[in-house]
Amino acid sequence: MSGLLERTLDAVGPADAGALAAARERHGRLTKPPGALGLLEEVGIALAGLAGQCPPPLPAPATVAVFAGDHGVHAQGVTPWPQEVTAQMVANFLAGGAAVNAIAGVTGADVVVVDVGVAAPLDPHPRLRDAKIGLGTADMTTGPAMSRDDAVRAVEVGIEVAHELVESGARCLLTGDMGIANTTASAALVAAFTGADAATVTGRGTGVDDATLLRKTAVVRAALERAKPDPADPVGVLAEVGGFEHAAVAGFLLGAAARRVPVLLDGVIACSAALVAAALAPAAVDSWTAGHRSAEPGATAALDRLGLHPLIDLELRLGEGTGALLALPLLQSAAAVLRDMATFDSAGVVEKTG
Amino acid sequence: MSGLLERTLDAVGPADAGALAAARERHGRLTKPPGALGLLEEVGIALAGLAGQCPPPLPAPATVAVFAGDHGVHAQGVTPWPQEVTAQMVANFLAGGAAVNAIAGVTGADVVVVDVGVAAPLDPHPRLRDAKIGLGTADMTTGPAMSRDDAVRAVEVGIEVAHELVESGARCLLTGDMGIANTTASAALVAAFTGADAATVTGRGTGVDDATLLRKTAVVRAALERAKPDPADPVGVLAEVGGFEHAAVAGFLLGAAARRVPVLLDGVIACSAALVAAALAPAAVDSWTAGHRSAEPGATAALDRLGLHPLIDLELRLGEGTGALLALPLLQSAAAVLRDMATFDSAGVVEKTG
Repeated sequence: MSGLLERTLDAVGPADAGALAAARERHGRLTKPPGALGLLEEVGIALAGLAGQCPPPLPAPATVAVFAGDHGVHAQGVTPWPQEVTAQMVANFLAGGAAVNAIAGVTGADVVVVDVGVAAPLDPHPRLRDAKIGLGTADMTTGPAMSRDDAVRAVEVGIEVAHELVESGARCLLTGDMGIANTTASAALVAAFTGADAATVTGRGTGVDDATLLRKTAVVRAALERAKPDPADPVGVLAEVGGFEHAAVAGFLLGAAARRVPVLLDGVIACSAALVAAALAPAAVDSWTAGHRSAEPGATAALDRLGLHPLIDLELRLGEGTGALLALPLLQSAAAVLRDMATFDSAGVVEKTG
Repeated sequence: MSGLLERTLDAVGPADAGALAAARERHGRLTKPPGALGLLEEVGIALAGLAGQCPPPLPAPATVAVFAGDHGVHAQGVTPWPQEVTAQMVANFLAGGAAVNAIAGVTGADVVVVDVGVAAPLDPHPRLRDAKIGLGTADMTTGPAMSRDDAVRAVEVGIEVAHELVESGARCLLTGDMGIANTTASAALVAAFTGADAATVTGRGTGVDDATLLRKTAVVRAALERAKPDPADPVGVLAEVGGFEHAAVAGFLLGAAARRVPVLLDGVIACSAALVAAALAPAAVDSWTAGHRSAEPGATAALDRLGLHPLIDLELRLGEGTGALLALPLLQSAAAVLRDMATFDSAGVVEKTG
């Protein structure tokens, strides 16, 4: 394992028990019935534990990093969308015309794009980072999707992006992704780490028809049977059945955890990448919040395994970071409540009797 | 029925079919798989139908109106919180120390408070509107909570507040409430309009213990048995078992609908008031979006009856408008997607095959 990844894993530590306890205690003194803010209270407590202070800092400013890559498994007919759409959508992100841009404009986040393996040359752009490792992965049904070295390189791209964004001032990171056929790789990763059958974690992605879903499921099963991925070797699993963007998102999650900066996970690509990252550094999970529950079944399987409860559940299945962005004001509100609310004492509000 | 209420009901009309169709069609041309934004697409389409134009205007700026009142049924021991907390929390709202203030600061909404029946004199404040109808309602277990005339007056307070906020520039209204014991009145309203048993719609409110929940349920049942409220007479139901703030929220919902300005509903107080408003003007429902699913069971019973799907489900049970505020960026994102996204044609993105 190379230097940057190893140093990053070493830097990931558990939540601060003292700050967790202080936040839990403070929630009992704020001017509301104890527990009345439900899961939002737990989110705020986790932010305090991550920051090591109570109240935690507001997770702002925020940046969503959209990691883009292509997939050799596209050749197996797992989606009706042409592979060239990946590059076209990257151009759309950079021009500001995609859903991720529209929602980032409302919820207040910057959008950057990282080319980690798009199967076409891309024109330079101030908000595009060129970190291309290959022109798409290889077809995972016939051999490994990428070499082990390339898997590590892609993970380290994600780590570097996390560090750079934090250095630039970001205090909340959001995962985004673009890659035609990338829900196929996600399903394979989720199956590899959870042990679930391909049929239970393979979904309709962009909305494929019944025949394509059957083919896609068979493709995932074939890749798993070929590769026999070992969840005790997370980098090996990535190399066999992952995608460049999955690897980069896994690194992004680890880099943020090492910096103790909170991350909002988007959909099934992020959730499957989080399984990789958690296998490498279990304590990193404490720095992640699930933005939403994707309609893709693999997302729920991954979230259950990670023990994460999503903030939003609106049957989104777009990716790009849209579900993470929608959850950003909720994450920020969880911190603001701990920071800004008065206590019963300070506000002169009497508490309940008995 | 008096003039303002009658004129308001006359002004409520259905969603614009042309704008609904245009928004649905536009969602199929935007650069994303059809339906990939799930329920957010339906929310945006509804906003277009309400506005009568596609894309719909962004629902901003936004104001949450916190309607405060007290309840004679407090004397029946339905909550461990002293009645004086209602006035103390109003002071907390005005000082900026409550959860509603902390979350409004993140999601970008103004907070105004309307005293529609707090059982104490309140000091003047620029953001407090004095519309006090009484020093709390009467005990609904021994007689009507308020007179029929006072119910209409309270409804009209809400209508007037909606008009004033729209005149001041608000383009999205959010319901808020404060009133110790007001979940008891909410449960009675929900039971009256849905026909559900008191036991299925009475909840723990601020978090009461088992013994208090049993007593609270018995109190709701006793009030219903005394009043025998007729859902065909919505103002009569309000007068028998409602609260001043419930009546005002119902009027607020009707006033916004008459102005075709979208409203985000908060929790069980808003949902029970919405049953009143929908009984008076069924088409008004098209202007409301459920901000969240309160942990209070009556909220779900009311939402089911209204046919509304909540945007957030985080087991909140605080009220004040907190759940509506958390959903505000989602509502705004639903409009921004329709307004700001490129189409396949304009972005040069090819569509799927087949």
